[in-house]
Amino acid sequence: MKRENYAMLCDFYEFTMSNGYFQNGFYKKNVYFDVFFRKVPDNGGFAIAAGLEQVIDYITELHFDSEDIEYLRSKGIFDEGFLEYLAGFRFSGDIYAVPEGTPVFPNEPIMTIKAPAIEAQLVETFVLLTLNHQTLIATKANRIVRASQGRAVLEFGSRRAQGASGAVVGARAAYIGGCRGTACTLTDELYGVPAGGTMAHSWVQMFDSEYDAFKTYVELYPDNPTLLVDTYNTLKSGVPNAIRVFQEVLLPMGKTKCAIRLDSGDISYLSKKARAMLDEAGLTECRITASNALDEWLIRDLMMQGAQVDTFGVGERLITSASSPVFGGVYKLVAVENADGEIEPKIKVSENTAKITNPHFKKVYRYYDNVSGKALADELCVYDETVDDSQNHTIFDPNATWKTKELYDFTAKELLVPIFKNGECVYEKPSIEEIAEYCRAQVELLWDEVKRFENPHSYYVDLSQKLYEIKSILLNLHKISG
Amino acid sequence: MKRENYAMLCDFYEFTMSNGYFQNGFYKKNVYFDVFFRKVPDNGGFAIAAGLEQVIDYITELHFDSEDIEYLRSKGIFDEGFLEYLAGFRFSGDIYAVPEGTPVFPNEPIMTIKAPAIEAQLVETFVLLTLNHQTLIATKANRIVRASQGRAVLEFGSRRAQGASGAVVGARAAYIGGCRGTACTLTDELYGVPAGGTMAHSWVQMFDSEYDAFKTYVELYPDNPTLLVDTYNTLKSGVPNAIRVFQEVLLPMGKTKCAIRLDSGDISYLSKKARAMLDEAGLTECRITASNALDEWLIRDLMMQGAQVDTFGVGERLITSASSPVFGGVYKLVAVENADGEIEPKIKVSENTAKITNPHFKKVYRYYDNVSGKALADELCVYDETVDDSQNHTIFDPNATWKTKELYDFTAKELLVPIFKNGECVYEKPSIEEIAEYCRAQVELLWDEVKRFENPHSYYVDLSQKLYEIKSILLNLHKISG
Repeated sequence: MKRENYAMLCDFYEFTMSNGYFQNGFYKKNVYFDVFFRKVPDNGGFAIAAGLEQVIDYITELHFDSEDIEYLRSKGIFDEGFLEYLAGFRFSGDIYAVPEGTPVFPNEPIMTIKAPAIEAQLVETFVLLTLNHQTLIATKANRIVRASQGRAVLEFGSRRAQGASGAVVGARAAYIGGCRGTACTLTDELYGVPAGGTMAHSWVQMFDSEYDAFKTYVELYPDNPTLLVDTYNTLKSGVPNAIRVFQEVLLPMGKTKCAIRLDSGDISYLSKKARAMLDEAGLTECRITASNALDEWLIRDLMMQGAQVDTFGVGERLITSASSPVFGGVYKLVAVENADGEIEPKIKVSENTAKITNPHFKKVYRYYDNVSGKALADELCVYDETVDDSQNHTIFDPNATWKTKELYDFTAKELLVPIFKNGECVYEKPSIEEIAEYCRAQVELLWDEVKRFENPHSYYVDLSQKLYEIKSILLNLHKISG
Repeated sequence: MKRENYAMLCDFYEFTMSNGYFQNGFYKKNVYFDVFFRKVPDNGGFAIAAGLEQVIDYITELHFDSEDIEYLRSKGIFDEGFLEYLAGFRFSGDIYAVPEGTPVFPNEPIMTIKAPAIEAQLVETFVLLTLNHQTLIATKANRIVRASQGRAVLEFGSRRAQGASGAVVGARAAYIGGCRGTACTLTDELYGVPAGGTMAHSWVQMFDSEYDAFKTYVELYPDNPTLLVDTYNTLKSGVPNAIRVFQEVLLPMGKTKCAIRLDSGDISYLSKKARAMLDEAGLTECRITASNALDEWLIRDLMMQGAQVDTFGVGERLITSASSPVFGGVYKLVAVENADGEIEPKIKVSENTAKITNPHFKKVYRYYDNVSGKALADELCVYDETVDDSQNHTIFDPNATWKTKELYDFTAKELLVPIFKNGECVYEKPSIEEIAEYCRAQVELLWDEVKRFENPHSYYVDLSQKLYEIKSILLNLHKISG
């Protein structure tokens, strides 16, 4: 493989801008960028934040090799002082982020970066692509897992992923979203996501008969073997051969755990027929796995039709989030530190009002109802505000300010937690199981209305009075100067 | 970054099967697998093959580290002899493939692997994901480039790519498909795809005024600077400030090459207004770049409406092939060598006739008309057949055998070329420019009917009489045994 330094996985304009910041002295100026998104994939009600661990690894390792500097020098447009600066580059800023597995909503920061201008700019591309990709896949996985109503979902999509990291960290994100395992061996080796798998059609084709192929397999792996039954004819050949082998080889060993896998044809029909044949043969503990172009809609339909499936193997439509394959997280300047060390809020206006940003260095509060435990609303506040949840608290919709809501008997929790302080990682990375369990528990705290696949309820993401006023002032300022 | 050995980017079942092949002696048996696909993304008429170079790199480096062996041992299901075998594993087989940049069609092999069973099996996942991903992106890029009718298309999508390799090799594939450059610096450093880029909105926001931001930029980069004009108001602020800076700073230097970039709003309307303002100011050489959720359909519409755009920057919809984000290449066993060294064809039947495979070790011929130069049809033949293009040659549609076509005055070219022989790479890798140029020239040789976006003509992919007969015999055999 070629030497890949992800410091260089960076849009070229980050370098042209940074070279400019270096030459005009802006590089010492602290700036604040927010990562946020505007739309949930598949028009869903929420997304599942993921990718933070890979951002931490990236920031920790971030440096430019001499080959990288040489490459940039060869472009003939960069200042030598800037290239020297890059040779000694380390990230020295602060990063705040929501923990992985957190349900997140449009227009709230899921990460905030405070750093000198060049540092904040040079990490943009990798930070965005990592959070965008893993959040996309964790969100999709969570939809598919919810559709499966407790049946296990396994990630099977490596061969159709968009590149190697699409497969490897994609399977990690799928586990965060609720999948129970993956077919990708490297994701297990690197990230501890349990990998499994049994046989392809080629195994069956390699033997003189399907029966021989199954028999050899079960003799080799008698602990809970899964047999792929659709190479020739599922109900006439595959299932009967599987039953015969389980009866001749497995049961005499005193073992009863086993499974068959359906990978083509009508899963609802075939699973019911196969279930009846297995039960008839006394193989009531034999489970049925289904795969073949599944997604949350097809699984929901299969469940409604009473398909006898115990485990869903989901491939290409999960690992690419095929029905909605882009997560549109953006990276926007929200404040700069002026010469006196004061934080000056910045806004990006747009003819498209949905694209106007929420200015300033911010906190995000999530409010939970103390009786039901459910999440009620999120509120964006200025960094120096504090919400006292022992008092009633009024929130309002920034797009319809007459719509207010009085909160009482609630708990306020800050979503953004410190990850880096002055370039040092201050965050204790949870295990992958902890992240997946945290995700499961947090999704549990959302109302069902927010979890609907079609037309979900829009969860409230409000602005504090103070932040709303700052935003209004900046908007008016730009209206005058525009 | 964690140590990533792509040998382990492998579906777990490849290991369980290989362990079985090892224990029953199949691992010495040569087998033949084809990589092919059944459907062109976006219902297009053809795909552009890409990813071969990364497959070559992977095969060349392929080995298992002691950490990998330890990891596999920890699973407690693998034979010690198999693990020792893996420790000394190298690929020793043959690989044939179509060169990158070749237009390819459903149901024809784009790669054939001949190797001992375990070797052929263990490379499946990485080979498929690499060819699937890059072919997907090259195909999408080619559609977008064709829609742009000669205007340059640049790849801008890293931040929305599905993972790091999605961005880096995705941009490489986009270049093969016809893009003229990328924003991804690492793709330039590693693969020589020209990277470029100028400024983000944050550059403009960082200064006290848009004018100051533009002036500083042009002073810094006076050679063909591009100014992003939509941070505040494109026509009232951005374009007038750009004109002022070009006139005050650029023209006095004797330079006239420059550009503006539109990144929001209605590109058709804004580009025409901006063009008129630039021309009015005498900046007729100033070019207009447009970006913002573009794809082949939007670009086609913009061209029809006379939008004044010279360069299209295409992001998320290209780098994820958003409207059709899965390339469904498969890896199917087509033959095995029996004890006598004879090649025995294998078939995978299916209740879904479209999923029945073309058996045997094959050649693929492409026939070109000697008068027009255009590609007429492809034909799959058995490996030992030879087509003599000095004679007339009759081909027929395998799905409608009464439909025949007589070819005369044509040239036959074999599409699959040797890449590895006995584990040694025998292929001289072309440069990325050569691949892109080859692609451009080969697409030129397709009839316009095949290039239509909607309902393209189905290009002929026929079977030789001999191959058709072998397939028929195998199908009947399975009908009887089924």
